[in-house]
Amino acid sequence: MAQRNLREQLVDGGSRVIYEKGFHATSVNDIARAAGVPKGSVYNHFESKEALALEALRRYGDSYDLGVLRGDGAPLDRFRAFLSAVIERTVEHGVEQGCLLGNLSVEMATHEGPIRELAGEQLDAWGAAFATVLREAQATGDLDPTLDPGVLGDFLVDAYEGAVARAKLRRDRAPLDAFMATTFGRLLTP
Amino acid sequence: MAQRNLREQLVDGGSRVIYEKGFHATSVNDIARAAGVPKGSVYNHFESKEALALEALRRYGDSYDLGVLRGDGAPLDRFRAFLSAVIERTVEHGVEQGCLLGNLSVEMATHEGPIRELAGEQLDAWGAAFATVLREAQATGDLDPTLDPGVLGDFLVDAYEGAVARAKLRRDRAPLDAFMATTFGRLLTP
Repeated sequence: MAQRNLREQLVDGGSRVIYEKGFHATSVNDIARAAGVPKGSVYNHFESKEALALEALRRYGDSYDLGVLRGDGAPLDRFRAFLSAVIERTVEHGVEQGCLLGNLSVEMATHEGPIRELAGEQLDAWGAAFATVLREAQATGDLDPTLDPGVLGDFLVDAYEGAVARAKLRRDRAPLDAFMATTFGRLLTP
Repeated sequence: MAQRNLREQLVDGGSRVIYEKGFHATSVNDIARAAGVPKGSVYNHFESKEALALEALRRYGDSYDLGVLRGDGAPLDRFRAFLSAVIERTVEHGVEQGCLLGNLSVEMATHEGPIRELAGEQLDAWGAAFATVLREAQATGDLDPTLDPGVLGDFLVDAYEGAVARAKLRRDRAPLDAFMATTFGRLLTP
């Protein structure tokens, strides 16, 4: 049980510091310090910094329940509620931290390995879930039927990640609000 | 003259390797190797890796002529031509490299200093230039006059950067094509 808690502490601390500094700028020492454990403990639980970051990214992805998009109510209402909740969570966590998935997907894009692969899979899963709810909105007549839900779903994932990145740089939620206003006021209309 | 050429070589080599690996993962050795010069030469020309990266980012920004957006012809035609040229240049350079500005803006967002500041200024300049051409399109009746050109201009900068980041991760230009299709087929209409 103590072992399990230590592992949790390491993933939590590692997440915080990788969020803040990025993967490459984070040392194993930084992770140990953030987790409040001795440096040696890191290697008792993870074979490498990469393995710890991978676990952090996996948990981050799992913490967003895309199933909410398939709930009750009008498709675009569900979609708006989902994105609003994601944005509020991002702002609450600290808009200057950005999105762990977005951060790692940019930083690790040219570094072969499991972090790049998992980031790609997670973004694809978001795009597919968005496409499904957009297709439902077309079926109920709430979205222009000539639009391609797959193209639009991926566009919205990318536009959202771009907005989080800008909000992170500016330390200001305005880009996220502009994303919502443009998406629901202009893009997703009959 | 030879000194000047060496400085150019360093900025070119440094750009290439920072593009590929990111700022933190790039060592001064990597830069020297990419530039084909001895390691000591780097410090003869730049006081730090940060100073070299800042110069690379400044030149990258300057290499995009936002003045083209103020040329002749219908505002949205100019805007489309500008974005198409930016995308073709990105693809030609290697879509897996992404956009130096976008890469650094994500990686350096939480690192205080001149790179973060310059990245913010460059993105703001793009947003302002986009807003101007969108305002002109409203004046000529080619764009819905109820849209806020400032909000939309910033949204498009962020959506573009998000699309480049996804294209970089996937090593595929499809996200850039989806950006153009959604922007000109849906967003920017009367």
